[in-house]
Parts: sequence; structure tokens; C-alpha cells
Amino acid sequence: MPESRKPVSSRRSERSRRAIYDAALALVGEVGYARTTIEGIAARAGVGKQTIYRWWPSKAAVLLEAFLDVAEQAAQGEYELPDTGDLEKDLKLVLRATVDELNSPVYDAPARALAAESVVDPALAAQFVEKLLEPQLRLYVHRLRAAQDAGQASPGIDPRIALELLVGPLAHRWLLRTLPLTHDYADKVVEYALHGLAPRP
Amino acid sequence: MPESRKPVSSRRSERSRRAIYDAALALVGEVGYARTTIEGIAARAGVGKQTIYRWWPSKAAVLLEAFLDVAEQAAQGEYELPDTGDLEKDLKLVLRATVDELNSPVYDAPARALAAESVVDPALAAQFVEKLLEPQLRLYVHRLRAAQDAGQASPGIDPRIALELLVGPLAHRWLLRTLPLTHDYADKVVEYALHGLAPRP
Repeated sequence: MPESRKPVSSRRSERSRRAIYDAALALVGEVGYARTTIEGIAARAGVGKQTIYRWWPSKAAVLLEAFLDVAEQAAQGEYELPDTGDLEKDLKLVLRATVDELNSPVYDAPARALAAESVVDPALAAQFVEKLLEPQLRLYVHRLRAAQDAGQASPGIDPRIALELLVGPLAHRWLLRTLPLTHDYADKVVEYALHGLAPRP
Repeated sequence: MPESRKPVSSRRSERSRRAIYDAALALVGEVGYARTTIEGIAARAGVGKQTIYRWWPSKAAVLLEAFLDVAEQAAQGEYELPDTGDLEKDLKLVLRATVDELNSPVYDAPARALAAESVVDPALAAQFVEKLLEPQLRLYVHRLRAAQDAGQASPGIDPRIALELLVGPLAHRWLLRTLPLTHDYADKVVEYALHGLAPRP
């Protein structure tokens, strides 16, 4: 339904929801996960805290949903990895886009706050993994299965493990801040993962 | 002669140093990085806080050194990766040992606390990387260079990037708590990284 034809209360809810997401992401990026509170989010969003408690059971739930919303906007409605028939080209495109996302300031602060908290909080980690991370990783599983069917990936590999050779190195650089995340790095990770570190016979 | 060089006080110093390390690691594992304080470490170690301030400039410095000490003990004086001439076998041994270390309760809590703080604190991350992480990663660089010389790794690969296909997946599972870290997983990561995800010609 076009925005203008939704009932007035629905439009107002949508505006509040958006304000709450924005406030939650801004706050967690600025003061960290531990010091972000429902009260703080409500004050910054200009809503009553009961509005937040009506829609979400916990701070973690608000933040995860806000973050899911960012991820969905970044995906721009694309819920599959590209499949041009050329696995290497497609994976380079995807990993370069991931590099850009990890380097983007909008994403960086809230993503780090959530990831850092997940490292030490198993309950939050379980939600983070179930709602945000595994759905993204499943896109890789699907693309790698298609590549197996097309003869571009070895039939014997387990795609759920194989994808970690692609996303693991990027996450390692980003989370532990070892070296810069660049497009050239993304390309090399794809090349090394597909063709292996051992000499080809 | 500084007090710490005198024999009797040297023994006392060594005992204090060890007590401070133990207290720092226990505390950071129990209450997290943010709530660990020099005062708390001193109280738990049974030393005056001036003793700590005399030896270390900051909480981060104590914790990193305590953690380095654990890592050195775990390495048991071995500062090179094994080189039997069989790269695949050697890497499986190393990654299985890493899995065991990441799964060990002694290591897990303080390592997570430090890693989580590094994710959101660039200054701590820089020290963590320089003093702890990069020295460990350099062992992989040396082993991969030896493998290149022995014809067991492709001459064209950059070992500093290649190693991330080995350690990145393990760090990803451990930090983000996606799936269990097992020896079988370590073996598959080594196999996939060495032989590649694409079919061999």
C-alpha cells in the first residue's frame, strides 16, 4: 500500500519505528551496547518508553531489529547472491560489497558494538547469529550449491564450511583490526579460496 | 641497583607479578574488560596498587602482558610452527591445537574480554595486534614461506593473506559463536584452504 494511503496511525507508527531504529543505532554506536538503554533510545527518538516496550521485549531485540533493517536496506531487496555462471566473478563482487559495507561509518559503529557484545554474551550471540548472520550465510550456501551443480565448485565440499574461507578472513581483519580491508584483499581471498594455496598439479 | 634486581626482592617480585597476572585474567574473565580496574587487580592479587602502577602504565598493559604470559606458557617454548615437510599434516596439527586452546576455559573468558574490547577500542586493538596477534601470525608466514620453498605452496601467493584463510574461519566461529569448533572442522579448513573450493583440473 502506498505510504499516503495507509491509515494515519499506521503512518505514525512507521515514523516512530524508524525514529526508534535510528536512535538505537546512533546510541549504541556512540556509547556502546552496555550503556544503551530503552530510556535513552526513547528519549532520543522522541517517543515514550512504553511505546518501545509495547513492540519489543528487550534492548537486544530493538537493536537487532534496527540492525536487520539496515542490512535489508543495504541488500536493496536482493536476497540472493549474484549468479552470472562465473563463481569467481560473482564472489569478488559480493566480497567487495562486504568490504565497502564494513568500511562504511553508518554500519561500522553499531555493527562493532553488537559484535563486541556478542563475543562476551552467549544469549545475544545466539539471537545475532539466528536472525542476522545465518540468513546471510545461507545465501553463500545457496550460491555454492549452484556452483557445485554447475561444476564450478568441488562436489565433495560442504558449502557451510566452505563459505567460512570467504567470510572468515574479512571478519578477522574487521573485528581484530589487523590490516586494511580493501577490494584487492577481497579479490585475493576469493582467488586463494577457489584455487587453493597448494600448487595446482 | 634497582630494587627489582636484588635477589630476595626479585623472588618476591616474581611472585607478585604472577599473582597480578592471575588476578587480572580472572577478573577480566569474570566482570569484563570495562569493569576490571587496577584497584580490583591489586586487591585480588594482595599487592598495593602502587606496585602495579610502578610496573605497568595502564590496565590494558597489565592485561596484555598477563595474556602474553598465558600464550607463552601454551606455546611451551615453541616459537615456530612444526615443519615435518608435510604442510597439510603440520597445519592440521596447529589448527587442532588452536581449536583446543579456544575451547579451553582458562583461555576463553579473558581472550573474549580482550577481543571484545579490541573490537570497539582501536587503541587497545593496536596493542593487541602488535604484541599478541601479529607475532603469532608471523609463525604462519614463516611456515608458508618454507612450504613455498619446498614446492608445497604456490609461489604466487602472499603468505600474510594466505594465513587468513586458515585462522579467519576459526576466529569467525569462535568470536561470533556460529557453530562448534571441532578437530574435524580444523581439518576441513586446512583441506579446503590448501586444495581450493574449485574442482581440480
